[in-house]
Amino acid sequence: MEQQFIAWLRERLPPHPLLLLGPGDDAAVLRMTGIDECVVTVDLLTDQVDFILDQADPRRVGRKALAVNLSDLAAMAARPLAAVLAVALPRHGGGALAVALYEGLLPLAEKYGLAIAGGDTNSWDGPLVITATLLGQVTARGPLRRGGARPGDRIVVSGAFGGSILGRHFDFEPRVNEALLLNERYELHAGMDVSDGLTLDLSRLIAESRVGAIVDTDRVPIHDDARRLARIKGDSPHLCAAPSGPFRQMGTGYPLGAFYSRTPLEHALGDGEDFELLLAVEPGDARRMLAEQPLDAALTDIGEITAAGGLWQREAGGPPRPLTPTGWEHKLG
Amino acid sequence: MEQQFIAWLRERLPPHPLLLLGPGDDAAVLRMTGIDECVVTVDLLTDQVDFILDQADPRRVGRKALAVNLSDLAAMAARPLAAVLAVALPRHGGGALAVALYEGLLPLAEKYGLAIAGGDTNSWDGPLVITATLLGQVTARGPLRRGGARPGDRIVVSGAFGGSILGRHFDFEPRVNEALLLNERYELHAGMDVSDGLTLDLSRLIAESRVGAIVDTDRVPIHDDARRLARIKGDSPHLCAAPSGPFRQMGTGYPLGAFYSRTPLEHALGDGEDFELLLAVEPGDARRMLAEQPLDAALTDIGEITAAGGLWQREAGGPPRPLTPTGWEHKLG
Repeated sequence: MEQQFIAWLRERLPPHPLLLLGPGDDAAVLRMTGIDECVVTVDLLTDQVDFILDQADPRRVGRKALAVNLSDLAAMAARPLAAVLAVALPRHGGGALAVALYEGLLPLAEKYGLAIAGGDTNSWDGPLVITATLLGQVTARGPLRRGGARPGDRIVVSGAFGGSILGRHFDFEPRVNEALLLNERYELHAGMDVSDGLTLDLSRLIAESRVGAIVDTDRVPIHDDARRLARIKGDSPHLCAAPSGPFRQMGTGYPLGAFYSRTPLEHALGDGEDFELLLAVEPGDARRMLAEQPLDAALTDIGEITAAGGLWQREAGGPPRPLTPTGWEHKLG
Repeated sequence: MEQQFIAWLRERLPPHPLLLLGPGDDAAVLRMTGIDECVVTVDLLTDQVDFILDQADPRRVGRKALAVNLSDLAAMAARPLAAVLAVALPRHGGGALAVALYEGLLPLAEKYGLAIAGGDTNSWDGPLVITATLLGQVTARGPLRRGGARPGDRIVVSGAFGGSILGRHFDFEPRVNEALLLNERYELHAGMDVSDGLTLDLSRLIAESRVGAIVDTDRVPIHDDARRLARIKGDSPHLCAAPSGPFRQMGTGYPLGAFYSRTPLEHALGDGEDFELLLAVEPGDARRMLAEQPLDAALTDIGEITAAGGLWQREAGGPPRPLTPTGWEHKLG
């Protein structure tokens, strides 16, 4: 059946100018002529952490596996080139599951011009695991890194935050084109995508840049999903489970027992899986960017990079208070 | 702890000329100037299929995860460039396990000049899963493919086969340098590495090349491990389990119920995980190669590529009889 699956995939894959040799051999061969700097990223998704297979259309799972990696390319302001996938399939129904996963991810690959270069298809007695490794091309502007933020930079985000567990964590659009456009037109000193939580990811950006940040919390764009989620009283087993699962964003970001009904702002600051851009922008360019609003998604100034370290919050011009980062962290036991 | 692990890894990684930006950002950045064709391969290893974590030193597991992918680069006669890893760690003891996995793979990466470009470290309630994606550079001779074998070619293998379950499946040396040397000096029409079983992999090579093959079974180099394994009566639960596990090479390659004590030759033809080279070589060059024996490992002529299709065996010059491929196939349910 693995051979049958590879035959099915070879049939389905459109030709791609980069793909000199596609799935079916021991490895794929990509044409890389003229590509001086290559971005490489990998994400591994597991059942019960990143999705609940019993409750999800597997096509959305396959799409998500690719989309989270595309979001990492966006975080580096890199152009998508190629992907390789590896899956560990449960023994029962693995063949149909593999097909559904690829049916979900192939349209997204085509949309972003990604060559599907190959993969590894396994079955085992465990739950579904899917990993994607993506290659991207750094543009002439260089890669967008976490480490370049400077005091005085404005903190700018795309889109709105919180409550992605209601479905957006599957169906978000990776900000690939947005990042390429912004990096081309404006001076971005640092950037990343928000996967683990707005404040947790910001704390990582400032740590890597050796600076601090003040977040004007009343300016943080709150997604409607965050408001909807805040109205849910926390008694749904699907949406509020113990820290060991089922969904990562309901997981270990908050102290044990803290599964109270959070405010929309709390959801926005810590839910994660928003897959929006978090940027440190040169102040003049930030003003221009916000005035021009060159994206379909809104760009919002939510605060400032500071020379003094630490993460701070400020409300309605009041004095800064410490802001504890919230979000998803993989705790290694 | 994930951040702590990344800090540990950054400390441990030697600088590498290809690695412009290593672990810790959203993606790594590799210098690819002058690399026209790039090989990319991925393998995913799971507990109970590719190793039994309870019974194995995790450093050997980490090493194997890299080595099987290096063997895929060898199969393409490509020079190793870089690797990214992704792991799903069991919650209990995951931090120490991650360190041990990397302690096992880092020396092998260094030996083959591989840049460790980054990875993704997850914890979950399931067993250990580890995937490695490797990039390699195609040499001026082009990639070695499965699809180029021609009638009259000699079938040449490196090393000896069978019984790798006794430990060699962990500690084998990937034939990277051997493949580069052979591809440089001789006319190799097709090639691959033997991961799933000598005859099963040969059946794939001839299918891809649209040719047939006759194997002179009395010339197949049998590893001492195959002889040792054949002496084991098949009553050890570790070495002879049901087709669902524990070890892949004792798995589904043989019909249900066929866990009789196999002969050394049967082990050699179907055990798999030998990670030796299987080549279709132009006949004149094959003679020269066998006379010169340019490797530390023995090179052996085990048969001939034929215009007529199918896989055949021949013993001591007798008439060819059909040869049923044996080995490991991922059966997708």
